[in-house]
Amino acid sequence: MKKTFLLLSFPLLFAGSMAAQNKDSVMLRTITNEILLHGKCYSYLDYLSNKIGGRLTGSPQAAAAVEYTYQLMESIGADTVFKQECMVPHWVRGGKETAKILTTTSGEYSVNICALGRSVATPEGGITANVIEVDSVGELKHLGKQAIQGKIVFFNGAFDETEVMTFGAYGKAVPQRFAGPSEAAKYGAVGTVVRSMTNSLDDYPHTGAMQYIDSLPKVPCCAISTIGAELLHKKLALDPNAKFHFEMSCQTLPDEKSYNVVGEIKGTEHPNEYITIGGHLDSWDQGQGSQDDGAGIVQTLEVLRTFKALGIKPKRTIHFVMFMNEENGTRGALKYAELAKLHKENHIAAIETDAGGYSPRGFGVNGKPQQKKKILGWRNLFLPYGIYDFMGGEGGTDIEPLQKSGTVMIGLMPDSQRYFDIHHTSQDTFDKVNKRELELGAAGVAMMAYLLAQYGVN
Amino acid sequence: MKKTFLLLSFPLLFAGSMAAQNKDSVMLRTITNEILLHGKCYSYLDYLSNKIGGRLTGSPQAAAAVEYTYQLMESIGADTVFKQECMVPHWVRGGKETAKILTTTSGEYSVNICALGRSVATPEGGITANVIEVDSVGELKHLGKQAIQGKIVFFNGAFDETEVMTFGAYGKAVPQRFAGPSEAAKYGAVGTVVRSMTNSLDDYPHTGAMQYIDSLPKVPCCAISTIGAELLHKKLALDPNAKFHFEMSCQTLPDEKSYNVVGEIKGTEHPNEYITIGGHLDSWDQGQGSQDDGAGIVQTLEVLRTFKALGIKPKRTIHFVMFMNEENGTRGALKYAELAKLHKENHIAAIETDAGGYSPRGFGVNGKPQQKKKILGWRNLFLPYGIYDFMGGEGGTDIEPLQKSGTVMIGLMPDSQRYFDIHHTSQDTFDKVNKRELELGAAGVAMMAYLLAQYGVN
Repeated sequence: MKKTFLLLSFPLLFAGSMAAQNKDSVMLRTITNEILLHGKCYSYLDYLSNKIGGRLTGSPQAAAAVEYTYQLMESIGADTVFKQECMVPHWVRGGKETAKILTTTSGEYSVNICALGRSVATPEGGITANVIEVDSVGELKHLGKQAIQGKIVFFNGAFDETEVMTFGAYGKAVPQRFAGPSEAAKYGAVGTVVRSMTNSLDDYPHTGAMQYIDSLPKVPCCAISTIGAELLHKKLALDPNAKFHFEMSCQTLPDEKSYNVVGEIKGTEHPNEYITIGGHLDSWDQGQGSQDDGAGIVQTLEVLRTFKALGIKPKRTIHFVMFMNEENGTRGALKYAELAKLHKENHIAAIETDAGGYSPRGFGVNGKPQQKKKILGWRNLFLPYGIYDFMGGEGGTDIEPLQKSGTVMIGLMPDSQRYFDIHHTSQDTFDKVNKRELELGAAGVAMMAYLLAQYGVN
Repeated sequence: MKKTFLLLSFPLLFAGSMAAQNKDSVMLRTITNEILLHGKCYSYLDYLSNKIGGRLTGSPQAAAAVEYTYQLMESIGADTVFKQECMVPHWVRGGKETAKILTTTSGEYSVNICALGRSVATPEGGITANVIEVDSVGELKHLGKQAIQGKIVFFNGAFDETEVMTFGAYGKAVPQRFAGPSEAAKYGAVGTVVRSMTNSLDDYPHTGAMQYIDSLPKVPCCAISTIGAELLHKKLALDPNAKFHFEMSCQTLPDEKSYNVVGEIKGTEHPNEYITIGGHLDSWDQGQGSQDDGAGIVQTLEVLRTFKALGIKPKRTIHFVMFMNEENGTRGALKYAELAKLHKENHIAAIETDAGGYSPRGFGVNGKPQQKKKILGWRNLFLPYGIYDFMGGEGGTDIEPLQKSGTVMIGLMPDSQRYFDIHHTSQDTFDKVNKRELELGAAGVAMMAYLLAQYGVN
């Protein structure tokens, strides 16, 4: 009997699950078609990029983006829209960013640099010093104070081109930018210049955050374009006494009041089970922050719009979150997690989209084995949309503070090849975004959000 | 015994296959790293695009491309390089391509058009006629001669945006361009204008081949930009008596002598088992033919370069083929298959790369079930390179004539979202190609070619 029971029940269970998957696959197709046919995210991004522009934390543009997305979510018809106040750093670039290589043999060469986020300014008139070139932070220890004292450290470790997914190369190279300045100061360096974080050989410096260690001297630090880095490398090889000169007028002002913006659709069956979808509203200042992370913001808005347009009533509560200050502080992310805890909200899962609005390739999933298994069980539903890769574990910076409370982390993974060509530069502008790629990413997030809201994670 | 034997042999077989896969995975990594670190395909494409340019069949540029790739394959060190002579059509665009909408109520509107490949010219001074708008070739039959006679047929069927892979939308819309002119002539149309084959709303007309039916009148036919198509549609809705005027000076000259260019590496163990890798050397004339199909050509060359650089000696013979005349005749493809048959070559498999140099997503595979199964057994080896999708059956136009002899057809499938934005337009230029995406596509083809050469298809 037992055997018979098993033989009978297995196909029945299977048939049941097949029927559910069929119903789901019809709904996911409906969601995707709505976005591909009537999507608004591309026009939202046009506004955010061309009418508001770069949205550095603490800037008037960041404030304008708060108002724009607040009003947009109200007009789309979220059940409620609210702001979460948080104090944010207010670093400004200032007007001056110049640099040159001073050789002892062949004159001077201007190169393109930009200050790293949080850097102090140079003294007026700039800094001029001899240069020591390294390929990683680790090399500093071996060189020691004797070799570094009084010099500018030139971090010239390039992207590892053999990393197929470019985020892998970024992860390896980025300590030079983030930790490099204080590590160099530890050995007496007077400043640092870091090769831009990119696969591309071009003349745009890539900014990005760095972090000073409070107990160490704060030395000014900049990024140099890859063409500039190649030139500096070449000149130093020919002329080890060549000096580097740079001047920057960036500064850190007192903290400013700012906000996360949150739209909510209340769950019909499990209102205290929360699903977060979000990207970050702030961006660097040089470009328009269109791929980083305007794309994630407008994809999040598109999911809200689509759910409302199709009359989808999720079983669990969904938060559509415009996080503030991802780039240089993550204060918004910390505030969001803090308030979730304070309000005793049960955040079961969070989806972050902050890797560009390129063709979606997959999702990183990070949770307990059973939860991962459940989510991977939905994989077949995503294949018709070219979303195949569920192997990675990446979530995202803004949802990370939720993880301590056991929230399942999910990160949208778009194609990564073009991302670092423009990341954190003046070239991150609206024209770099393809409408359909952006929409397909939004569809990916919408489908995942739908399944999470219907079925939970346990 | 039998049971024991099975229990023992299965793990052993499995272990054996694991060891082979490990060895293969190391080799595929070596191949990919060679291309990502030392690849030349991007600089080959720079030459093909910027020094030679658009390479319409029969043009001096097409002849220059034959010489360039012949000499390049010799210098890379193919065992032999040879040309396969074939007579090709010689259609030229001429200098004149103008069009306007003539309303009865609000004046004239200039719109951007281009002649379709193979179209006859209009009479000097152009054609002016009333317009009948349709969304598909099928509609013509329902409208009949009475509605169509003496008019210009405007095929305005748009791309189906819900097709996730854009080639699906192309496949549905393209009969309007290819078969539309003769179908319209059947009912007495005096000319046709077709909405450009693209997802994008812009002002670049997209050319492409059409085919006249010999027994029907040859009417001039052009493509109109999507912005022009929208305008024409709007004007016709307001003013059904609006006329369309267009003038074109294209013509078909006598056939020209041209060539496929073939590089060969002789197989060490099965020299009479052939694997073809190829793209097409000709392109349309308006742009530089960089994505279509300069990308496929330079990826094919990159595979040859990589095999030589790494000293890979394939067990089976590989042909690296620059096919001539894919765009408006496929004479090169027909000649290649004809000569393969004549020389009694056993062509076991062919890989075509003619869908752009974007991030590779998968391969279409078309062959006997056992052959497909064998190739799909290699799928795991491709996953680390983001190549996941082996569900499709697309091969390619240039390898299709081989299929009759039982050759397994394999088509590289890159991400398709941006392809039709620039396909067959003045915008298909070198700057639209991303170096790493191009290289990753070349790596995909190289890996597949390696496995086919090592293990065959049976």
